[in-house]
Amino acid sequence: MAKFKIVFQPSGRRGEFDGELTILDAAKSLGVPLESLCGGEGWCGRCKVIVEKGSENLSPLTTEEKKLLSDEELSLNYRLACRAELRGDVVVSVPEVSVARVQVVRKPLLEIPVELKPALKKYYVELPPPTLQDPTGDLERLLKTLEETHGLKNLKVDYPVLKGLSKALRDGEWKATVTVWCGSEIVKVEPGRSERLYGVAIDVGTTTMVGYLLDLTTGKLAAYHSLMNPQVPFGEDVMSRITYVMDNSDGLERLHQKVISGINSITESLAKQAGVSLSDLYEVVLVGNTCMHHLLLKLSPEHLGCSPFPPTLHQPVDVKARELGVRILPSGNLHVLPIEAGFVGADNVGVLIAVEPWKSEEVQLIIDIGTNGEIVLGNKDRILSASCATGPAFEGAHIKYGMRAAPGAIEKVKIDAESLDVEYETIGGEKPRGICGSGIIQVTAEMFKAGVILHTGSFNKQLETPRIRKTSEGYEFVLAWKDETAVGADIAVTQKDIRAIQLAKAAMYAGAKVLMKRFGADHVEQVILAGAFGTYIDKEAAMVIGMFPDCPLEKVSSVGNAAGEGARLALLNLSKREEAKWIAEKVHYVEIAVDPHFQDEFVAAMMFPHQKDSFPHVEHLLPKEES
Amino acid sequence: MAKFKIVFQPSGRRGEFDGELTILDAAKSLGVPLESLCGGEGWCGRCKVIVEKGSENLSPLTTEEKKLLSDEELSLNYRLACRAELRGDVVVSVPEVSVARVQVVRKPLLEIPVELKPALKKYYVELPPPTLQDPTGDLERLLKTLEETHGLKNLKVDYPVLKGLSKALRDGEWKATVTVWCGSEIVKVEPGRSERLYGVAIDVGTTTMVGYLLDLTTGKLAAYHSLMNPQVPFGEDVMSRITYVMDNSDGLERLHQKVISGINSITESLAKQAGVSLSDLYEVVLVGNTCMHHLLLKLSPEHLGCSPFPPTLHQPVDVKARELGVRILPSGNLHVLPIEAGFVGADNVGVLIAVEPWKSEEVQLIIDIGTNGEIVLGNKDRILSASCATGPAFEGAHIKYGMRAAPGAIEKVKIDAESLDVEYETIGGEKPRGICGSGIIQVTAEMFKAGVILHTGSFNKQLETPRIRKTSEGYEFVLAWKDETAVGADIAVTQKDIRAIQLAKAAMYAGAKVLMKRFGADHVEQVILAGAFGTYIDKEAAMVIGMFPDCPLEKVSSVGNAAGEGARLALLNLSKREEAKWIAEKVHYVEIAVDPHFQDEFVAAMMFPHQKDSFPHVEHLLPKEES
Repeated sequence: MAKFKIVFQPSGRRGEFDGELTILDAAKSLGVPLESLCGGEGWCGRCKVIVEKGSENLSPLTTEEKKLLSDEELSLNYRLACRAELRGDVVVSVPEVSVARVQVVRKPLLEIPVELKPALKKYYVELPPPTLQDPTGDLERLLKTLEETHGLKNLKVDYPVLKGLSKALRDGEWKATVTVWCGSEIVKVEPGRSERLYGVAIDVGTTTMVGYLLDLTTGKLAAYHSLMNPQVPFGEDVMSRITYVMDNSDGLERLHQKVISGINSITESLAKQAGVSLSDLYEVVLVGNTCMHHLLLKLSPEHLGCSPFPPTLHQPVDVKARELGVRILPSGNLHVLPIEAGFVGADNVGVLIAVEPWKSEEVQLIIDIGTNGEIVLGNKDRILSASCATGPAFEGAHIKYGMRAAPGAIEKVKIDAESLDVEYETIGGEKPRGICGSGIIQVTAEMFKAGVILHTGSFNKQLETPRIRKTSEGYEFVLAWKDETAVGADIAVTQKDIRAIQLAKAAMYAGAKVLMKRFGADHVEQVILAGAFGTYIDKEAAMVIGMFPDCPLEKVSSVGNAAGEGARLALLNLSKREEAKWIAEKVHYVEIAVDPHFQDEFVAAMMFPHQKDSFPHVEHLLPKEES
Repeated sequence: MAKFKIVFQPSGRRGEFDGELTILDAAKSLGVPLESLCGGEGWCGRCKVIVEKGSENLSPLTTEEKKLLSDEELSLNYRLACRAELRGDVVVSVPEVSVARVQVVRKPLLEIPVELKPALKKYYVELPPPTLQDPTGDLERLLKTLEETHGLKNLKVDYPVLKGLSKALRDGEWKATVTVWCGSEIVKVEPGRSERLYGVAIDVGTTTMVGYLLDLTTGKLAAYHSLMNPQVPFGEDVMSRITYVMDNSDGLERLHQKVISGINSITESLAKQAGVSLSDLYEVVLVGNTCMHHLLLKLSPEHLGCSPFPPTLHQPVDVKARELGVRILPSGNLHVLPIEAGFVGADNVGVLIAVEPWKSEEVQLIIDIGTNGEIVLGNKDRILSASCATGPAFEGAHIKYGMRAAPGAIEKVKIDAESLDVEYETIGGEKPRGICGSGIIQVTAEMFKAGVILHTGSFNKQLETPRIRKTSEGYEFVLAWKDETAVGADIAVTQKDIRAIQLAKAAMYAGAKVLMKRFGADHVEQVILAGAFGTYIDKEAAMVIGMFPDCPLEKVSSVGNAAGEGARLALLNLSKREEAKWIAEKVHYVEIAVDPHFQDEFVAAMMFPHQKDSFPHVEHLLPKEES
């Protein structure tokens, strides 16, 4: 088969390929950072490239490209990298707007105080050396001493420990430190005295993975590290990853290997930061939504994608690190928290054991706003949970200038109600490149408050300002003019963007309302925002657009990365694992999509802030009722 | 580094090598079957080759070669392949006598009746499919049904089972067969109904490995397969393998991989013979001496080689097949029987649970004559065991024309006391190439009965026959003349050979006597010969030369491969594993080498049949007392 050459400008990276592949495939393979939110499905329109040479050597223009590229772009030889297949040699340039940027990861941890009761414990022993009168085997000698001096009985020994046992005992001249997991299994024998004992808590998010290194002898946070989930190039959300697995025979293997490589990047970085070796890491506790959970354990997520959405299993999983190729102590354990139902996974269980709503007198609404939204409603009496298909709008997809929380993302906005002048702040203070998730909420609220958009979400066509204009794709509002931006174009919010926000917030609000109806609550007493996005969201703006039901603003709080916090708690205290198991079974999962009230609630919640529900706590901020 | 060419004649196999290596290394690497009993240690003298070209391109003649090669051989350019290092190109021929031959494996199994109570059991289940009202996870659905229909509770699931679970349940349309190990762990879930359930019992001998395929639903022997232990090229006996591990940084890894490859050859052959797949093999029960046990589990045997000889562990080991790369069901279990002490290993435990001496009223002496000799003495009251360094003489090493039990080996001999004419039979009826272990016992007994050798083991120089002659190395007795043999030389038994036999049988006899003294028995009531060698040995001849204490001949019996039989029993019946654990702890191990009586007993046992002990049951066969 013929070989096709491709050169990416301005980086100059190049490669030769044979067979059918797209420009996006070639970019991935060569490590060219090309934005792609939909994972190459042809719907996000983010992977625009300009064909400099050889446009005749590409597959014909597709309908998706005709829809997603403007006439001007088409005339300038723009293509979507995920659609254009190589048929010969080409040179393409990656415009600034299509360069994938590393997300700024901001996932603070609450570090809730917890009793230190980890799964692992070290025991120091001194053994009598073998003699001709007592030539007992090394293991039996060790077990006898452990029983005599520490009262440990019926210990199992993980097989790899046996391989190094004789040497360790002799290297330490019959003095050794034995690490026991869950009081039942020897996972390490070290010569002499050893104190080092670390564990890792990891939150495997759809978009971001964060790991925390905990010193299991003190409970202190020793280091943390985060990175983009390496699965992102294969699909931005869980559904596109499930699709990837179903469409590719090696899809599960690839996505599994990607998340494992992410975990290994984390453990390696953590060990390096703390100046310890990988074999000083004894356990990893993991949380993630059901899809991440399945991909992590190499379980096919296929059936999660279609009704009735059963997972392979709910119960917590303990599996040896070596079984999954996770680089910590090979005899170390991976503990994956249990999952509830549907997509309400181990991450939500993590949130629950961090927030502990079952201890609350007041009715709490807990919203974990990630790429996949999860909501919990409850108090000491009952706890309900649901998953809501918010879609990736809050993460910047489906939004024309949406982007991840990376440098240059507009995150704060103020629109003057009189002049309609715009003030904005970007992450890192860079020239704007787009709008991040928390920014889009605020922009929408500001546009609503300033009357740029109406109660229905439609643009107010009666306002006269050059910022509101009509294009071939409909109305849009200019936030930043071309000369202020880093992308060589005006950054605007379009009517379509507002519709996407309406759909996302309506899904969340309607989900909350369905849970409230089931619970028998006509209002919520606390709103708790979890997740990175929840931390940076402007709670007033969120309530102005009606993301969640009315509640005193001082009762709206952020708990940061509560899923990661839950993993930390389960790592430090075995009882929290029992609690996780208990709550995963106790939570009543509601499949809101099939609730008879859902559709009505959804439609009503499309309005800003709502068709009929009142918002006394932000009433004063809302525009006067339109006539 | 320069490359050296080597060509082996008559096969014509050739290769190029750089770096320091011996002709034997080159032969191993090219797969040239070159005999080597000592594993290249330079003492067996079996790897003779004739240098046809390039003798100047080899390292200088060593002292070992000067000692082990005759003047004639030296003049004909003979070298020991393990001593001669390549320094340039050479052509060597491998004489017929140095060609390694596959041993004829003859290890019959007693097939003692036993109640069928294997570790594995299959359960058929039919599950209600998931619905929106009951979207429980696949595993929880399965566990619930297993509890409801079969009363199985608290089942663990081996991780790899999870990976295939969802597919298996759907492929079988929610009907499945679940295999449970030890009533506690799910190791397989198959769609629909499945009955196939097999296990393998393997005896890992120093020289020979034998595997038996058992149908765990009927207990029937379905197939068996044996092969040379692939470790043999690295050393014929346990001490030379331990030396190999200590001398080579990758020695343990290599020997371990060799025995695993042997196990895999066995499982593959068994599966093929029975027409089943490897994943239908659910468990392997293994026995072997302590060194084989350690190499199999990749535990360094280093400390077994020096006093006080402690093993890494005694207790039985259960380890997943995938952990050791054994190709059966990856979730299948490897059960290694416990070991006693020193070199009295899991093989002897196998012998014990097959013979069950603790049920005997009579005092039994159980001798397992392998490359490593193990003896047990006991009855219902007490059981003692010991290991005796018989050395490899009974396996044909240290014997000038000794060879393995392979085609052409002399196994039966009769010497006419008057004429000193010799009648012999060989394995396979081929022209003689040497003498195998059971043959050497009979030859020795015949030579003693015919007066060729005296009570002291010395040759009777007064006999006049061309068969007795003196060479530069001392006296020898010709069994087969050059024109009758396949090796182009007379096959003879030398004075040195007789001395080696005396040492070996004296070690065994003295060991038995030490145990008898400890036990308080002045005679034994039964002698039980175990092992392949024990099966083919002529018990009368063995008693004539004094291999074991006198006993009525009808009380001397062979139990075949009792170690393998023990593995079979432990595979078919879980209680036998408990029995094995119990007996391994109960047996009192005696370190005979340090017993104060051992030296005296050893010296006395050097005589044929013994210096002072009488042998009333073979008295009539013994030559008249020499004056």
